[in-house]
Amino acid sequence: MPEITFLPDNITVSLAEGAPLLEGARLAGVFAETPCGGKGTCGKCAARVLSGSVDFRDDRGAAAGGNASAGFFNETGNKAGENSAGRTVLICRTNVKNEPVVVELPKASGEAGKFDAGADVSRCLPESRESFLKSVRLTVAPPAFLDGLSDADRFARAFRETVNLADEKYTDATRMPTERAEVRLPVGVLAELPEKLRAKNGEVTAYYYLDGGLARVVDIDGGTDADGGVAAKNLGVAVDIGTTTVALWVADMDSGAVLASETAYNAQIECGLDVISRINYAGKYRRELKDRVLGTINGLIGKALTSAAHGSGADAALLHSQKDGENPQVKAERFLKRGAIRCASLAGNTTMIHLLLGLVPEYIRLAPYTPAVFELPLCSAGEIGLNINENAPVYIAPAVGSYVGGDITSGALCTGLAGGGETVLFIDIGTNGEILLGNDEFIFGCACSAGPAFEGGGIKCGMRASAGAIERVVIDPMTGAPEIFVIGGSGNGAKPAGICGSGIISIAAELFRTGLIDSAGKFTDRDCAYIVRSGKTAEYRLCEGISVGEPDLDNFIRAKGAVFSACRTIMDSVGMSFADIDRVVIAGGFGRFLNLEDARTVGLLPRLPDGKYEFLGNTSLAGAYLALVSEERRAKENEIARRITYVDLSGEAGYMDNYTAALFLPHTDIELFQ
Amino acid sequence: MPEITFLPDNITVSLAEGAPLLEGARLAGVFAETPCGGKGTCGKCAARVLSGSVDFRDDRGAAAGGNASAGFFNETGNKAGENSAGRTVLICRTNVKNEPVVVELPKASGEAGKFDAGADVSRCLPESRESFLKSVRLTVAPPAFLDGLSDADRFARAFRETVNLADEKYTDATRMPTERAEVRLPVGVLAELPEKLRAKNGEVTAYYYLDGGLARVVDIDGGTDADGGVAAKNLGVAVDIGTTTVALWVADMDSGAVLASETAYNAQIECGLDVISRINYAGKYRRELKDRVLGTINGLIGKALTSAAHGSGADAALLHSQKDGENPQVKAERFLKRGAIRCASLAGNTTMIHLLLGLVPEYIRLAPYTPAVFELPLCSAGEIGLNINENAPVYIAPAVGSYVGGDITSGALCTGLAGGGETVLFIDIGTNGEILLGNDEFIFGCACSAGPAFEGGGIKCGMRASAGAIERVVIDPMTGAPEIFVIGGSGNGAKPAGICGSGIISIAAELFRTGLIDSAGKFTDRDCAYIVRSGKTAEYRLCEGISVGEPDLDNFIRAKGAVFSACRTIMDSVGMSFADIDRVVIAGGFGRFLNLEDARTVGLLPRLPDGKYEFLGNTSLAGAYLALVSEERRAKENEIARRITYVDLSGEAGYMDNYTAALFLPHTDIELFQ
Repeated sequence: MPEITFLPDNITVSLAEGAPLLEGARLAGVFAETPCGGKGTCGKCAARVLSGSVDFRDDRGAAAGGNASAGFFNETGNKAGENSAGRTVLICRTNVKNEPVVVELPKASGEAGKFDAGADVSRCLPESRESFLKSVRLTVAPPAFLDGLSDADRFARAFRETVNLADEKYTDATRMPTERAEVRLPVGVLAELPEKLRAKNGEVTAYYYLDGGLARVVDIDGGTDADGGVAAKNLGVAVDIGTTTVALWVADMDSGAVLASETAYNAQIECGLDVISRINYAGKYRRELKDRVLGTINGLIGKALTSAAHGSGADAALLHSQKDGENPQVKAERFLKRGAIRCASLAGNTTMIHLLLGLVPEYIRLAPYTPAVFELPLCSAGEIGLNINENAPVYIAPAVGSYVGGDITSGALCTGLAGGGETVLFIDIGTNGEILLGNDEFIFGCACSAGPAFEGGGIKCGMRASAGAIERVVIDPMTGAPEIFVIGGSGNGAKPAGICGSGIISIAAELFRTGLIDSAGKFTDRDCAYIVRSGKTAEYRLCEGISVGEPDLDNFIRAKGAVFSACRTIMDSVGMSFADIDRVVIAGGFGRFLNLEDARTVGLLPRLPDGKYEFLGNTSLAGAYLALVSEERRAKENEIARRITYVDLSGEAGYMDNYTAALFLPHTDIELFQ
Repeated sequence: MPEITFLPDNITVSLAEGAPLLEGARLAGVFAETPCGGKGTCGKCAARVLSGSVDFRDDRGAAAGGNASAGFFNETGNKAGENSAGRTVLICRTNVKNEPVVVELPKASGEAGKFDAGADVSRCLPESRESFLKSVRLTVAPPAFLDGLSDADRFARAFRETVNLADEKYTDATRMPTERAEVRLPVGVLAELPEKLRAKNGEVTAYYYLDGGLARVVDIDGGTDADGGVAAKNLGVAVDIGTTTVALWVADMDSGAVLASETAYNAQIECGLDVISRINYAGKYRRELKDRVLGTINGLIGKALTSAAHGSGADAALLHSQKDGENPQVKAERFLKRGAIRCASLAGNTTMIHLLLGLVPEYIRLAPYTPAVFELPLCSAGEIGLNINENAPVYIAPAVGSYVGGDITSGALCTGLAGGGETVLFIDIGTNGEILLGNDEFIFGCACSAGPAFEGGGIKCGMRASAGAIERVVIDPMTGAPEIFVIGGSGNGAKPAGICGSGIISIAAELFRTGLIDSAGKFTDRDCAYIVRSGKTAEYRLCEGISVGEPDLDNFIRAKGAVFSACRTIMDSVGMSFADIDRVVIAGGFGRFLNLEDARTVGLLPRLPDGKYEFLGNTSLAGAYLALVSEERRAKENEIARRITYVDLSGEAGYMDNYTAALFLPHTDIELFQ
């Protein structure tokens, strides 16, 4: 079978002759975006063949639309024996021949990682930081002849003597006679306890968490390495599970430092772009959806561990401690093991959490819109299927409604809503737009369906906010010529590959400002060399292969209209106007790059003073991190969740009127934007 | 690939040409005893070829000893094309050719099942019976628009309103804010909750257990079948995990009835006959030992469910409820599902429990003989690997010493030691002999290594107490001719296949009574047509292919000497003599067939009045059943476990003297037996 090597990961797999390259990419575990399910229609799996010959084809025809940016759709098939080197192909539509091939995939998540880690979480951290994952150094007495104490008994005695569980509100009266030990050791930890106690003469570190009056041990560790090495780090993982994008941080639980950050598309995308289509899909394939998102998360954890171990994440001490000549892979193994990830904090919307856990999501969609669960107790990673320490407690941010989920309560942790005396409007813009409006007296929450436009979905040349994405455009008012700004474009020389969420906002604003489109988002008659008209359709060309058409603008306007009208409706419901707002906190995958003036021009945001706006990036992820490293923040989040009054927009009389009024650039009520 | 059919289970598998039949038996999941590990040395996997031709061989030579009963060791190999029909072969030494074969394996466990279920447990049952697995009928309110209650919330509310957890000593003050629900639903149960609540308008039965102040839900059931059928039974399983034999009962948790009973050799036997050799084996292959015993238990559960569903177990109502023309297999599925086994109770010696759980057993064997654990809280079946409902609570009988395990505390439940005012000597005779001596004031416990002789191991023609086993022998004092009694021999016409534990006791007693052996267990010079002498060796022939030699008698005498001297030593340690004993309770796989006079003749038991003896069979299993169906019995067992003072015989000065004195028939101190 021919060997296929995938760059930049440099992973080689053997593939049967005639098999699609995509199968090889999956085998190799390398990242290839296939939101269309490998049907050859989205063009997102484009890759360059560096050497070898392949069978590639594009049978979609020119009229099928799709991502023209890759610039390969005019080439169809290749002659026998012809070398394909240098060709860009869709790996889902390309089959291997009986010869080795080297393929280069676009670097997927590097830039996005830095971007997501950019949310400023440090100011939200309380001074005294203690996680729900606790640890304690114990000295366990050696075994003695006929003292009637097993290893577990002596461990439990040392634990009780060292940890004052009375402080933890533990009451011994709740015990049954057979359950006198208030410390619980999972079978897997008990299995190794005899060796661990004897290895260090009873000197061990126990990691545990509290669960309804029980101290549940997660792991036992012999502590510092006998041969002078540094003990494996104690790690935690914070995950934001978005409908479109999954993002995570791996944190050092001792220092609180974020060691690595990774993002990827949620592998459920192939099963539907929004939560409603996912719920429909779950009717038949609930297990598949669970496996897909678990695959995404577990894959990202592996990547994050590798990059953290190689020092690219943050921690200089890690690099510093490398032994002479040590193999980087060995070092990665030594420092950062999946088993050393001993706690996790997840945030996601209500549907995403249902799908992750394999819960029937059907009744989220059907009146009276009742999910299976809002709040979960700490689960174990093994129960969920996270590939970290199987006993690790997993905290899942509580939801408050079918469409205001844990991503929002998590995000609220990063805002003044967590207690600050201000009236705050918190807008999280993703596939769904969720809004919180509140102060110290009340918090109202609602959600609207924005669609994937803000994350690059539903836009012909859309893409995630990663390297190569056009994030901003300036259009010359005279010539209509675009000046484009690409993520990673200046230093790293990334070529434009598509348009991300902030890019589409910028383009729409500039086209509108320059009069190239009207307030309905249609191209005007104004003459411009960059507008390509063909019959009734027209599109604006940004560069070779990347353009924006009216369907893209339509999708965008519906998205921004949904978000803006949701804000307005919830404010109406409490009799407030924008003038009453002290602060507007914007979150979302595009947040850091969002140009405020552009957002006001298109009517996504109202015309308030610049100083009232704050952009926090992925607050769901940042909040998950805060709950991970601080038990006090976790308690705060649950308090916020209980305070939120959920408003169902479909039941609010004014919502449809507000929405219709917002389907213009910027709005029918022009006063809001002046 | 040729198809191989195994009778009596009538399971057909495809096997590669040249593969051993044993591999086919494993593939088919049929029972084949291979204590020698498939080396062709034990002869226990003998089977009859009913049709087809196979390659069989016996390259051990006549001098290798082993089970001559099968009578096939003179036939070696077969000619090409020769039909093997009618031949008895060792399936471990027989390879398939390229043609279909039908093989009949001996029926393994039918009789043994009845035997094990024979222990009289009903008298030990308390009048008020409530298991640690509890159930409650709930009416859960329907979902309501914007009431802020998820399915889990409404379920928890109904649960709290119906079950008074205050009665269960539950204190709400121990709760953390995020863990306000004192009812815990595993993710797997939560997953189906939406459908279950809606299927019956909120009428459900919840199965749960209490765990440190939490009510943990095991399963939720819609109750009676809408189409008029009978709901699946609520089942539990009690298991005795012996070093040699695993036995289990499946019980109807509603009526307490034992629906089925199964036994099999512990598949760990191939890895060593006694606990010490198992512990040594675990040094390298701990995982394998765990998998082997789990395989045995899970296999027996499947068999028990099938036989119970087909009514062979007990329950007439099951048969009665069969729908017209319903396929028996469908019926089995409908009534008795692994998922409906919602609780389990396990008893085993300390080493067996360590190996089942995968715990390092090494320090049981090494001074100061400290096991990893004596008492375990309730675990889940999923955590252990039992193939029943994954959330089922599993109770494991507590151990009190490295060699006085949960099998003994479990057995003690069936004796007066559970409170009755008498002084009781409890002897459990298995691979290990364990002894309890106690009354209402004290209980002392100790253990000795008897070896597998009492379970048919270490005896050339030994076998388990199942169909075909010689359980009793009467020898004509004049001619020395044996009259043999075979399990299943009268009505079912089972042919003698080997000698079980009670058989070897009977044979030794009769040989000694008739003067054919002396008090050291050696054959005398007495002339007898049934004694076959060959050089320095001699053996007594019971029938074609079954005989007893001096090595067998040696093994037996060491076994009985170990048990008797252990009894004596523990009585010495508290200054008691046999005259002080009110009752002697005998347990063990052979118990029901043990002839008291024979046992006294060989010096296994002292010469006390018949009325003081009681035979209870497998008390470990019976006790596991009692703890399964009665929470009060479970609490009692834990009380007993705490009261037992463990005596280490290796530290008792008199034990070796007592042991040496007991290596005679009946004993050097003849007064004890007169």
